[in-house]
Amino acid sequence: MGLVIQKFGGTSVGSAERILHVAERVIEEKNRGNDVVVVVSAMGKTTDSLVTLANEINPKPSKREMDVLLSTGEQITISLLAMALQAKGIDAISYTGWQAGIETEDVHGNARILNIQTEKVQERIQQGKVVIVAGFQGVTEAGDITTLGRGGSDTTAVAIAAALKADKCDIYTDVTGVFTTDPRFVKNARKLLAISYDEMLELANLGAGVLHPRAVEYAKNYQVPLVVRSSMEQEEGTIIEEEVSMEQNLVVRGVAFEDNITSVTVFGLKNPLTSLSTIFTTLASHHINVDIIIQSLTNDQLTNLSFSIKDSDLEETLKVLEENKAELGYDKVNSEQGLAKVSIVGSGMISNPGVAADMFKVLSAEEIVIKMVSTSEIKVSTVIEKENMVKAVETLHDAFELSKITVNA
Amino acid sequence: MGLVIQKFGGTSVGSAERILHVAERVIEEKNRGNDVVVVVSAMGKTTDSLVTLANEINPKPSKREMDVLLSTGEQITISLLAMALQAKGIDAISYTGWQAGIETEDVHGNARILNIQTEKVQERIQQGKVVIVAGFQGVTEAGDITTLGRGGSDTTAVAIAAALKADKCDIYTDVTGVFTTDPRFVKNARKLLAISYDEMLELANLGAGVLHPRAVEYAKNYQVPLVVRSSMEQEEGTIIEEEVSMEQNLVVRGVAFEDNITSVTVFGLKNPLTSLSTIFTTLASHHINVDIIIQSLTNDQLTNLSFSIKDSDLEETLKVLEENKAELGYDKVNSEQGLAKVSIVGSGMISNPGVAADMFKVLSAEEIVIKMVSTSEIKVSTVIEKENMVKAVETLHDAFELSKITVNA
Repeated sequence: MGLVIQKFGGTSVGSAERILHVAERVIEEKNRGNDVVVVVSAMGKTTDSLVTLANEINPKPSKREMDVLLSTGEQITISLLAMALQAKGIDAISYTGWQAGIETEDVHGNARILNIQTEKVQERIQQGKVVIVAGFQGVTEAGDITTLGRGGSDTTAVAIAAALKADKCDIYTDVTGVFTTDPRFVKNARKLLAISYDEMLELANLGAGVLHPRAVEYAKNYQVPLVVRSSMEQEEGTIIEEEVSMEQNLVVRGVAFEDNITSVTVFGLKNPLTSLSTIFTTLASHHINVDIIIQSLTNDQLTNLSFSIKDSDLEETLKVLEENKAELGYDKVNSEQGLAKVSIVGSGMISNPGVAADMFKVLSAEEIVIKMVSTSEIKVSTVIEKENMVKAVETLHDAFELSKITVNA
Repeated sequence: MGLVIQKFGGTSVGSAERILHVAERVIEEKNRGNDVVVVVSAMGKTTDSLVTLANEINPKPSKREMDVLLSTGEQITISLLAMALQAKGIDAISYTGWQAGIETEDVHGNARILNIQTEKVQERIQQGKVVIVAGFQGVTEAGDITTLGRGGSDTTAVAIAAALKADKCDIYTDVTGVFTTDPRFVKNARKLLAISYDEMLELANLGAGVLHPRAVEYAKNYQVPLVVRSSMEQEEGTIIEEEVSMEQNLVVRGVAFEDNITSVTVFGLKNPLTSLSTIFTTLASHHINVDIIIQSLTNDQLTNLSFSIKDSDLEETLKVLEENKAELGYDKVNSEQGLAKVSIVGSGMISNPGVAADMFKVLSAEEIVIKMVSTSEIKVSTVIEKENMVKAVETLHDAFELSKITVNA
């Protein structure tokens, strides 16, 4: 007998039929003898159509009013799921963010949860009710409605799990778990039984897309065990927790990748001390996200600087650099489009020096040229030519023995 | 410089374009130097489609969850109208029912407003903002969302006008005011400049449909002057207030009518003392609305009872009477379908005895048979054959000089 938080995303609650199906998943958990709190997102395309409607009226709507508007999406889902459970004879009650006591900062569109007043929800749980809470939303001290931004419903689920000291938090999604790499590209991809918070954070930031990094961070901070699993299929998912046993001696637990990367090199920076910070402050103020940064000293005491950006930001980046050429003081700029980033992630690297070297060796054996490298304690990222991306991922996946995991995808 | 409450219904806010148009009407009022609080309904068919969705999931959804669901409709409108005003450079802020401090009974689907905490709204008005409040909804002391039932947004507008001691409350609708009779049927129908609360209540109950009786009652109790006017056209509407000057010596101010009426007669009730209450209690428990009731004593001390219902309730009514025949103790039941009710309304009747007689004379001159009669201080209703309905209305409208009103429709 425990307390389980279940979170269902927009696809899982996209129609009346899907909501009735979600009710079945809730009842299964209830039948295992557990208390259940369910967190839901807005139905399928609801948010998109509300945004379209708003833009017809005001191309630049105020963020406060957008939050009032968008929060209706989850409010619709909670009431419908409560009705679905009631139709199946289960005592259920819905709560919006403000009703569930989810207090946030006074920031619209991207608020952080400050506190959760759990009395009301706890009282309902004690009465044997299934409590359904609207994800993605909260309320400020002054009583304004806020939303939590991308991945907000995951964050709500984890925050509620932490506040209620739940035994686990199940994130139901349209995939069956976290994979060693993207199964749409690599047929040998395997589902992981377990992964650590830190590894998941690296994978999430690298674009694995299953869970929002903020939710993973929150789970790590409060040590909430997360399970990513399918809302459609019954198979077991992937557990995300602090310490993950080194099943099958995995040093690397995943290979992440993304394409449409451009590298930009600025040659001959005359004043590296100040120009480095000036370049990146300037780019940030133009909302250009810079990923890998490499600085090298050349013979004649001039500095060359390389960094990677998304292909779509190249034009703006070149413009910004050109406009600030005098201030930055450099000779010339080169860029190379059509690149990809391939990364290996695994907390086993910490105690296994030489993993990066192994990676380079594998790529070099395939005659894949490495353009840039970046490393963290549990990650090695390389930038290579896009046409080599899938081959690199497959080769690394095999070389680090991820294809040998026996749990099937 | 005063405070004006404006209420816009579902048709007036049915699309992005219509909402932008409503914003113009708000700005006009603001430009007259008034502070403005706007109350809005859900957009057009939103409520209907939410009800359909709910019924797909649960044919008998809980009323609490229906309120959570339906209240999203007005929440969408308030945010969009705020955005529309902001797009036109007006400082505006939206409030849901709970944010606006609209406290109701703990009844779902048909709650009454108990109190309005106006501090927050007043503070915003003082800051020069246009405040937009979601109609039709409130919150219980325990923090549950409630809705006010049919005509709920009108009631919200009137209640806010009363709480804020507004100078007037403009109800914007798809007609230009209150008419002497329905202009879709009678070409001589005239728009009234003014009508009293009591007259409006009789007209509203008689199916004039412009304003919900509960809102009119509320306005009467708190002496809030109401104006019914068009959201599309600029012409003046009809003011509804306590004392209305007898412009043009009108004794009768309106002719109301509805068809699809059935009369039912129960013959030979053996125990009129108890059976009368038993019949109507039983019918009420089957949700059958009884309108006119007439009881007559026959020669042999047996009582005959006639009453009018809607055609659609006949089958159920006959079934209920048959099932309770033993208990009620009567000889037989007759019914007549295809009738209509035509009523004249006017507070001038109080000081003009003989108005009812005038009405009967007019109808009799047209050879229209009166099947049933019911009177109140300011109303006379007759039940006649449906095929005579429009002729009766036109004749009465002319006879009581309503066609002579000079304000054009």
